[in-house]
Amino acid sequence: MAATTELISALLLFLLICSCNISNSEKTRRPEPCKRLVLYFHDIVYNGKNAQNATSAIVASPAWGNKTTLAVPNRFGDVVVFDDPVTLDNNFRSTPVGRAQGFYLYDKKEILTAWFGFSFVFNSTRLKGTINLAGADDIMKTTRDLSVVGGTGDFFMTRGIATLMTDALEDDQYFRLRVDVKLYECY
Amino acid sequence: MAATTELISALLLFLLICSCNISNSEKTRRPEPCKRLVLYFHDIVYNGKNAQNATSAIVASPAWGNKTTLAVPNRFGDVVVFDDPVTLDNNFRSTPVGRAQGFYLYDKKEILTAWFGFSFVFNSTRLKGTINLAGADDIMKTTRDLSVVGGTGDFFMTRGIATLMTDALEDDQYFRLRVDVKLYECY
Amino acid sequence: MAATTELISALLLFLLICSCNISNSEKTRRPEPCKRLVLYFHDIVYNGKNAQNATSAIVASPAWGNKTTLAVPNRFGDVVVFDDPVTLDNNFRSTPVGRAQGFYLYDKKEILTAWFGFSFVFNSTRLKGTINLAGADDIMKTTRDLSVVGGTGDFFMTRGIATLMTDALEDDQYFRLRVDVKLYECY
Repeated sequence: MAATTELISALLLFLLICSCNISNSEKTRRPEPCKRLVLYFHDIVYNGKNAQNATSAIVASPAWGNKTTLAVPNRFGDVVVFDDPVTLDNNFRSTPVGRAQGFYLYDKKEILTAWFGFSFVFNSTRLKGTINLAGADDIMKTTRDLSVVGGTGDFFMTRGIATLMTDALEDDQYFRLRVDVKLYECY
Repeated sequence: MAATTELISALLLFLLICSCNISNSEKTRRPEPCKRLVLYFHDIVYNGKNAQNATSAIVASPAWGNKTTLAVPNRFGDVVVFDDPVTLDNNFRSTPVGRAQGFYLYDKKEILTAWFGFSFVFNSTRLKGTINLAGADDIMKTTRDLSVVGGTGDFFMTRGIATLMTDALEDDQYFRLRVDVKLYECY
Repeated sequence: MAATTELISALLLFLLICSCNISNSEKTRRPEPCKRLVLYFHDIVYNGKNAQNATSAIVASPAWGNKTTLAVPNRFGDVVVFDDPVTLDNNFRSTPVGRAQGFYLYDKKEILTAWFGFSFVFNSTRLKGTINLAGADDIMKTTRDLSVVGGTGDFFMTRGIATLMTDALEDDQYFRLRVDVKLYECY
């Protein structure tokens, strides 16, 4: 009889632990990233004279724009295709760990805002695969969040948030973004 | 012995409830949105004469198109960048609760179809954050579904379906879409 | 006493199966697709002379490009809108089961790479709904993975990986992609 009661107690304990685990695993979906990486990417837009250094180019613009000067006002309507080096620190000359590839477009007449669709593409010994992102970039804010909508390779099926910060902005020539990639779904 | 049997019955009941919960939690992922909102957005495309009122502009077009008239046939190949006011009812003059920002492109020669990549951007006292969307818009159908691929702020990491309805269509000047945003994954 | 022990054994067995199921259901999120389909899509880009057959058109290009010839070098900066037939085998003349609609852009000066944002749109008796995709296409690799970021209809809320293979490439006129769509989240 005592043995039976002990067995039942053990069972109850097991069940308790089991349910704890279930609620824990749901909680971890929320606040703590399962993976995190901070990246910088560097963009030099083609201006008609910098073909050697440019990492991006205006490929579409509104009726009043052109492809070697950013449109006025606020670059509204310009679409830029880019292949930007990605580094682990803010130094443009650091060895890239990957590329940021895709496009951004400027989408507001009154202030600077953009919309991004792009991928971080990694192909080093340390990192392989891609992280796919989409979302609005309210450039005048200190930080703004894009969605990580998927990933491949090391980032298979991931989802998360990428927080952008403008780390440098030099005229219409160069900008550098700091991206804090927080992944909340990892496989 | 009776006590033991009762304990075991209790355990079995617990297990039953437990498994019910598990299947329930899976079911809730399916049919019932965890959040829902109905929005309207209003688009006035630039036609060369309405710079003041226009909320969008053609920025790319096929070889046979231009940037102040929608291409013929069926606008195929036109890419439009937009920053459209978002309202809670179908009145263009209602106070906007946010903006719809991004692009759409027309992608079929035979009939009107489009592809959208854009965000609802909220920044009011009631709503903060963004909802990111992508998908095909088979315009000639009464309703059509896009994917909500992510969100930030109040819509952190959300996913869902956005059902579009053309609520108004005036020549090539103005259209209004009703969007029923049904979120099935909420954090 | 024997009966009690048997009952307890049964319970333990149940728990064991139960935990197996839990870990299995987590495992199935990983390696085994819940749905899989292999599709081919066929793209004929407009070159100024093939208006009848073309399924896609260059709609944006860099300052040095135009809309009837792919840009040099490596088509960098060209944006192409497409409405391509989707077939179940590699025969262009097979009855399409749907369309691939959206855009791709070429985003690297040194080699051929692209970025895709598009949907598979199905509307047959067998298949209804859409699959929405985004991601980088490192064309020179044998296979490369895009993200399935969402779906509607038969593919409600799905996520997964689409593995692309270039199945044919004829000059700058025609390409055919084999797409192995592996869905890991099904509702």
